[in-house]
Amino acid sequence: MNDPTPSLKAIRRPVPDALVERLRQRFGDRFSTAEAVREHHGRDESPFLPVPPDGVVFAESTEEVAEIVKACGEHKVPIIPFGVGSSLEGHLLAVQGGLSVDLSRMNEVLSINPEDLTATVQTCVTRKQLNEALRDTGLFFPIDPGADASIGGMAATRASGTNAVRYGTMRENVLGLKVVTPQGTVVETGTRAKKSSAGYDLTRMFVGSEGTLGVITEVTVKLYPQPESIAAAVVSFPTIRGAVDTVIQMIQLGVPVARSEFIDAEAIKAMNNYAKLSLREQPTLFLEFHGSEAGVKEQAQTVQELASDNGGEGFDWATRPEDRTELWNARHNAYFACLQARPGSRAISTDTCVPISRLADCLVGAREILDRSSTPTMIVGHVGDGNFHCVILLDPENPQEVEQSEKLNDEIVKLALSLEGTCTGEHGIGLHKIGFLVDEAGEDAIDLMRRIKLAIDPDNIMNPGKIFRL
Amino acid sequence: MNDPTPSLKAIRRPVPDALVERLRQRFGDRFSTAEAVREHHGRDESPFLPVPPDGVVFAESTEEVAEIVKACGEHKVPIIPFGVGSSLEGHLLAVQGGLSVDLSRMNEVLSINPEDLTATVQTCVTRKQLNEALRDTGLFFPIDPGADASIGGMAATRASGTNAVRYGTMRENVLGLKVVTPQGTVVETGTRAKKSSAGYDLTRMFVGSEGTLGVITEVTVKLYPQPESIAAAVVSFPTIRGAVDTVIQMIQLGVPVARSEFIDAEAIKAMNNYAKLSLREQPTLFLEFHGSEAGVKEQAQTVQELASDNGGEGFDWATRPEDRTELWNARHNAYFACLQARPGSRAISTDTCVPISRLADCLVGAREILDRSSTPTMIVGHVGDGNFHCVILLDPENPQEVEQSEKLNDEIVKLALSLEGTCTGEHGIGLHKIGFLVDEAGEDAIDLMRRIKLAIDPDNIMNPGKIFRL
Repeated sequence: MNDPTPSLKAIRRPVPDALVERLRQRFGDRFSTAEAVREHHGRDESPFLPVPPDGVVFAESTEEVAEIVKACGEHKVPIIPFGVGSSLEGHLLAVQGGLSVDLSRMNEVLSINPEDLTATVQTCVTRKQLNEALRDTGLFFPIDPGADASIGGMAATRASGTNAVRYGTMRENVLGLKVVTPQGTVVETGTRAKKSSAGYDLTRMFVGSEGTLGVITEVTVKLYPQPESIAAAVVSFPTIRGAVDTVIQMIQLGVPVARSEFIDAEAIKAMNNYAKLSLREQPTLFLEFHGSEAGVKEQAQTVQELASDNGGEGFDWATRPEDRTELWNARHNAYFACLQARPGSRAISTDTCVPISRLADCLVGAREILDRSSTPTMIVGHVGDGNFHCVILLDPENPQEVEQSEKLNDEIVKLALSLEGTCTGEHGIGLHKIGFLVDEAGEDAIDLMRRIKLAIDPDNIMNPGKIFRL
Repeated sequence: MNDPTPSLKAIRRPVPDALVERLRQRFGDRFSTAEAVREHHGRDESPFLPVPPDGVVFAESTEEVAEIVKACGEHKVPIIPFGVGSSLEGHLLAVQGGLSVDLSRMNEVLSINPEDLTATVQTCVTRKQLNEALRDTGLFFPIDPGADASIGGMAATRASGTNAVRYGTMRENVLGLKVVTPQGTVVETGTRAKKSSAGYDLTRMFVGSEGTLGVITEVTVKLYPQPESIAAAVVSFPTIRGAVDTVIQMIQLGVPVARSEFIDAEAIKAMNNYAKLSLREQPTLFLEFHGSEAGVKEQAQTVQELASDNGGEGFDWATRPEDRTELWNARHNAYFACLQARPGSRAISTDTCVPISRLADCLVGAREILDRSSTPTMIVGHVGDGNFHCVILLDPENPQEVEQSEKLNDEIVKLALSLEGTCTGEHGIGLHKIGFLVDEAGEDAIDLMRRIKLAIDPDNIMNPGKIFRL
């Protein structure tokens, strides 16, 4: 079983009074050691109990971040970058103590280049905020995790969402970064050119590094023209396999679907209750097609035929923009809807991703594993990518429920790894999947990651205790 | 000026007799110190004069590569991986001596997974060989540098080609790698899942590392369904700007063009001579559209209108597959056609890539710079990506021509960097762009690259002297 406790038991490093005094003098009210503030910054959306930092600094510029990093570096005090707190794997817990650097005030859209289809934003601009800023340009930024996450945080966890099947993940959509290194140096990676072979891919080294190699302070991302035509549909199936087979066949045929989300009967039920919807409580696909009018019509027709062949019924088209907004809001809030199915619960969310040919086996197998749970469980997922989330509700204060959930989680991850998949498609490793990463990548690959970490951050001050054990 | 000579003057490291004897005993005929063999392995398609290695080992398996690396590592002897020798930046020159590891016998397609749209190949399978193996599957592998390069070599230089505007580069299309590390360990990176957030992105650390971090021995790549419909066209323009503006407007409108190649009048002339074609000797676009029949028709119509608005004339459609093959063969052979414009020449090929909004300025500016050359010059390029190549012919034995070419090259790179671009879109840094990388990325970014290099390869045995100076 994947046991996060060793990290949680790690010894907190001392934060010298001299550092506290220096930060207080320099940042005044923007440095806080108040319990409520520390508590808020020592937790995320994972089921882990909070582990607060020793203090929180609210930074307002890259230069301030560099100053904080240098000051902490002198005392080997850990630094945990904090965006909007929506991570799901314990990334923000101060397991070795240290300071949380709250970046929420760095939330300016710095430039939009419609001609180049790029935008440069400060790290804590959220995905919705960027899309709001793009409203009059005819462009959009497609990456959409459930939460209204910060774009810097999304880069740090290599996030994706419902549009990734068509537009890729943060891996494909970050062109360049501004990063404060553990030495307090400011480095810019990448250029605004669409492609480059210029040296090691530092951009993609920082994308997915979960705050362990530096603090991302600016992100340049790709944008896309709003499609001429959009069509969204809901279709339900008598069986999970029917829904999944439809998606698999669609992908294998090369239909350029923009979104293809699976939601199982239990999750639909939770969404109906939470968002006052009246969807059929059956395995369901939410689909969306982007393109020219003719192109969308063609895609929709192909998929409608595939769905019928697999037992799909009640193809329900959301043609008005407001109907589509309602649909995707419901999908984005699915995690919160699931949590409400048993008020007061927290949840473990699995995040496995497998090759598309193994998806039906993985998803059906996962449902069988979940059916043994004594607490409610749901499945939602970006199945066009082979990625889905099992949501297992639990009371974090109830050791039996925690143990049971971890055991089910463990079985699902092992199943995905046996099917040539990964333990995390988009949430990251954090504290929770450290053991799974070893199972997946092997000790020799972890050794390479450790070498990189120690070369860049020899004192291990950047979000220590995450991704792997040093 | 970007001067490669310091690297070329680096001291060759001694290759002890004990190592030579050991390799001779172990590999027999597959270890050679013959001058002709060494000479062949100490050069590439760049204009640099050869710098032969001290010996060449022909490896037949990952295990053999690991054995060779371990043996060389014991004596700190450099290792230069050799694929088909088509690199353009001096990657293969043994500037610090050592052994070339010829991988050409590792050329087996290991598996094709049509259901998952993936294939796993040994490192020296070439792009054409893979597409030949895919012929009956309805799938294809899109990345197509001019040469029939090895897929391992293409990964090592983060290569792309004419299809990148639609399908991405090796950065986007490598799912996983098998790599021999400088310690002789065999590491597998990535999985066959389409996306992952599992730890540092080791796959993309090795993609583009130019043999300096390890030897790539297997590559898992993405495949794509053959489009239902394909249309290709040639259209010529009275001015460079007319051609480039057409491409810029097409990209900004979001037309999902599959290929959009610019060829200037001088390059068309060379191609006409080389391939016995009769293209109009004017600035020209080669275009290709992929999709459903209706989709391709729509795209073609949109672009035809844009071209007309920009003075394009003689829209000539290649509808038969054999006509398309002739067209793209001519494009892929453009570099060799240019070389033939002055028999016996070698060439410097620039490789700048800029944001699309700066492309017209960059390309027109580059042509003005080239017009000062005393030797023939041509421009060809993947303009949909903002990437183009100026081919400057030279006699490598003529110091004046070498100096002039380097000077023009230098000016063109500086122009691209001033337009927020990169010095290399797809060829890599090698020996030739070490100075430009410093200009582009800055010393602090190079410092991060050096830290990674020394952490992974502390004795600097992997293709030393390339990308940056240690």
